[in-house]
Amino acid sequence: MTDLHLALLKDDRPVLSPEEFEARLREKGTSYHIYHPFHVRMAEGQLTEKQLRGWVANRFYYQIAIPVKDAAIMSHCPDREIRREWIQRILDHDGYEIGGIKDPGGIEAWIHLGEAVGLSRDDVTSLRYVVPAARFAVDAYINFARQQPWQEAIASSLTELFAPHIHQQRIDTWPEKYPWVKLEGLQYFKNRLTQARRDVQHGLRFTLDYFSQSRALQERALEILQFKLDVLWGLADAIMLSQCEMEMKGEKQ
Amino acid sequence: MTDLHLALLKDDRPVLSPEEFEARLREKGTSYHIYHPFHVRMAEGQLTEKQLRGWVANRFYYQIAIPVKDAAIMSHCPDREIRREWIQRILDHDGYEIGGIKDPGGIEAWIHLGEAVGLSRDDVTSLRYVVPAARFAVDAYINFARQQPWQEAIASSLTELFAPHIHQQRIDTWPEKYPWVKLEGLQYFKNRLTQARRDVQHGLRFTLDYFSQSRALQERALEILQFKLDVLWGLADAIMLSQCEMEMKGEKQ
Repeated sequence: MTDLHLALLKDDRPVLSPEEFEARLREKGTSYHIYHPFHVRMAEGQLTEKQLRGWVANRFYYQIAIPVKDAAIMSHCPDREIRREWIQRILDHDGYEIGGIKDPGGIEAWIHLGEAVGLSRDDVTSLRYVVPAARFAVDAYINFARQQPWQEAIASSLTELFAPHIHQQRIDTWPEKYPWVKLEGLQYFKNRLTQARRDVQHGLRFTLDYFSQSRALQERALEILQFKLDVLWGLADAIMLSQCEMEMKGEKQ
Repeated sequence: MTDLHLALLKDDRPVLSPEEFEARLREKGTSYHIYHPFHVRMAEGQLTEKQLRGWVANRFYYQIAIPVKDAAIMSHCPDREIRREWIQRILDHDGYEIGGIKDPGGIEAWIHLGEAVGLSRDDVTSLRYVVPAARFAVDAYINFARQQPWQEAIASSLTELFAPHIHQQRIDTWPEKYPWVKLEGLQYFKNRLTQARRDVQHGLRFTLDYFSQSRALQERALEILQFKLDVLWGLADAIMLSQCEMEMKGEKQ
């Protein structure tokens, strides 16, 4: 990736207008993991019960990384206003109880999804089904948030631009394609429809503003978004490959 | 300080009982900054207006470090239950607005304290009166939370054991000793009376439990608390020394 300090230097290319810049960010959606063969098969109803369970169990490692990643962003951010908005993401995932308002949070909702596909709470929280390459992909994301400037870590959250589409797809297709999944398990996806739309408003506004200080910075934001898309793609790769290997070994699916 | 891995090894000394361990932690209160000559003079009403203002302006750098430090702890903590308790500290300092419940937060309350002693909001938030040695002391604390295990960073918060005393002292003495300070400025200290007592319950319970795995770990917790006491003492040193230097240069107090 481009060195940030180089990127901060003006270059000869014209700065993209906010509309052009946003359009370039949105174009990245063509490499969102909704187009990964594993997720295409998921939406088409082609996954076995064991494969769907494997996805839910592996993806849990991503779910528990989110509040840690968001705390890392806040731990580098000296701007109180931004922290006040960003903290909502941690509250959404970890859950909270403040003055009578109670939300068990997204991690808990994901555990319920696990139970809805036939895993036990311990199957999910023990991480025993998480394959190493899934960890590596997710860890790359956490490490990015820990090590890169917080502005870059905010830009890396912009895959949320594309998230409502994949959540809606699951809500629409699972009841028909996977009728054995308990319906209440879909609550996580329903919650995220609203939350992801609200989160992305904030992240997008910040990115369009901050990274428009130079064309090189805008290009850097596009690279960062690609990096995060690669994390999600790599996670799907890891899960699919581990399942292929199990099949090749003749394990019962 | 002791190496953590060495500390984890059992040593020949007996583990302190929870009561003994807590008593040893509380004994550290003898080096709390309430006994620092600068704070003794503050409580006795001996500070000039400029000196009190200097303290409020410098201490603001500590105030804004707190949520960043707490986010650093959360960014290393894989335990959701602990994060759910710890996040309250960030909410307390940054403020929040959740479902109709609104709290402007401790940083804002400190800015009001600044105004109550005759500083402008910009005098406080620009950090223009913060002396380098005050930054170094506070930065040592942030860096500890960023670089050490989160369990150690939690133990470092235990100076809150002694905080209600100093807050109460200011509430009791300032109206008489510094009648020129607007009374509403004392709200920060009043809020912290309750918050610090609640926070320390959690931090103390955790420390008594986690660090009682070995005597060496208990000794490590005592060292960590001493480190944090040194941070607060060093901050007071830095402020007092800078004011002595100004006096020696014959600047008008």
